Amino acid sequence: MRRSSPACALAEYHEIKPSYYSKAMQKLVVAELVRSFEGRAGGLALPKPAEDITVLQIVLTLEEDQRFFRCTELRQKGPCAAPASQYQKPCNIARLMHQADAEWRRVLAKTTLSDLRQSVLDNTVPSVTEATEA
Amino acid sequence: MRRSSPACALAEYHEIKPSYYSKAMQKLVVAELVRSFEGRAGGLALPKPAEDITVLQIVLTLEEDQRFFRCTELRQKGPCAAPASQYQKPCNIARLMHQADAEWRRVLAKTTLSDLRQSVLDNTVPSVTEATEA
Ligand code: FES
Ligand code: FES
Repeated sequence: MRRSSPACALAEYHEIKPSYYSKAMQKLVVAELVRSFEGRAGGLALPKPAEDITVLQIVLTLEEDQRFFRCTELRQKGPCAAPASQYQKPCNIARLMHQADAEWRRVLAKTTLSDLRQSVLDNTVPSVTEATEA
Repeated sequence: MRRSSPACALAEYHEIKPSYYSKAMQKLVVAELVRSFEGRAGGLALPKPAEDITVLQIVLTLEEDQRFFRCTELRQKGPCAAPASQYQKPCNIARLMHQADAEWRRVLAKTTLSDLRQSVLDNTVPSVTEATEA
């Protein structure tokens, strides 16, 4: 059975500022990585199996889109620039930076929420596991 | 022979705001990735061969230190937290994020300024190469 958790209880449990927490959850709901159930028995739950949600999806949804490199096409400025039509391919700096960004994404794309949960369960301190399961 | 370039001419050439440009150069000088020569024949130059400077060194020097993941140890908050002594290893989320960050760095650490220059020369549009060499 799918268990859902009231949003305020989760924020309280984790000692997170409720406004920060609800903004983050709102983003995840919009991206359909979290589902929000209304009503008395309502709360938040995963809309699909944890195996089908990657850490990358979550991180990209939560982060502002500032992380990845953007080329400002400086090469097209200055007195020696050629006509714009000659700059079809991305510049070399951008190509390298995009490669680095792609490697970063690759690591997070191959780990699912389910992998992460499992690794937490395997590594967490025993007293926490007991308390959480109680 | 090492050629040095007056800083203001470089900013002008690239159509970069002089204040932005000199801030960036100042950081690179402090990190000893660029050397500044005083006086009439002064300007900026590399303090060592371009083969010995990686793109990673440059990017880390220019960027504010905001890029890499920092664990806020949320796991140690909340009613089910164990004593601090039980959290010796980094948490699982941090471990994964650090892995991704390390892959990003790996790409930029294996490319030197000399590689980058070569790839620019190999790929730049012909009219620019001619104008720059003239
Ligand atoms: S032209 Fe400068 S990063 Fe692309
Ligand atoms: S405890 Fe949350 S990222 Fe480490």
